[in-house]
Amino acid sequence: MESLSLDECARRLAAHGVARIGVSSHGKVAVFPVNYVVHGDDVVVRVRRDGALGEATHDTYVAIEIDHIDSIYHEGWSVLVQGRCTHVTDPDELDTLRRMPLLPWGGTDRDTYLRVAMESISGRHVHHREH
Amino acid sequence: MESLSLDECARRLAAHGVARIGVSSHGKVAVFPVNYVVHGDDVVVRVRRDGALGEATHDTYVAIEIDHIDSIYHEGWSVLVQGRCTHVTDPDELDTLRRMPLLPWGGTDRDTYLRVAMESISGRHVHHREH
Repeated sequence: MESLSLDECARRLAAHGVARIGVSSHGKVAVFPVNYVVHGDDVVVRVRRDGALGEATHDTYVAIEIDHIDSIYHEGWSVLVQGRCTHVTDPDELDTLRRMPLLPWGGTDRDTYLRVAMESISGRHVHHREH
Repeated sequence: MESLSLDECARRLAAHGVARIGVSSHGKVAVFPVNYVVHGDDVVVRVRRDGALGEATHDTYVAIEIDHIDSIYHEGWSVLVQGRCTHVTDPDELDTLRRMPLLPWGGTDRDTYLRVAMESISGRHVHHREH
């Protein structure tokens, strides 16, 4: 297991488009796949306001994880972002975000934009060692 | 977005081998990729006792998420397991688990077996709808 540099983590975050978001709500953790874009120092995700993610993400700490796994060679890497998540309400900022190439799965009724501040970023490359 | 039946979720859990585990520790959520096997009503994962996962998973609620994402067609599915996680200490149970085909990434120094009770299982299939 080898750590990735911050630059390398940022590069992979910018190049990837699918993440898993981890949230904690009522003492339980949940993880869901999401599309995302990087915008400045934030990771931006679109969700449905009345969905599980909309309700569990307002003004709280969440995790954004991306990875690439080679299931044949059992090698891979992952990058973990942790930071405070807020719902974007500023009209100008929403205008900007709506122009970004962020198509959520499950339809365009995902009207709420989450902004996750990248307060902590870490990454690791895992090599397979059977012996 | 369409829910998957419990049978369908169980079938996909049994057929898959790579998951993301979501843990909450000191008020922050973290998500990491892991290999796993299903053993009875548990999801079993191997970690290093002194690693981030070893320390954040003893006798606490965690999430296990598997998915398949088609990044071209923006379709996919995911299954989420939530339940209490404990470290296996019973020698007979450890013997059984050590015979299972569970090779962790990052080497065989992952000497701690986590058992996540599948208390809640849910799954969803997401179809792409651009319009």
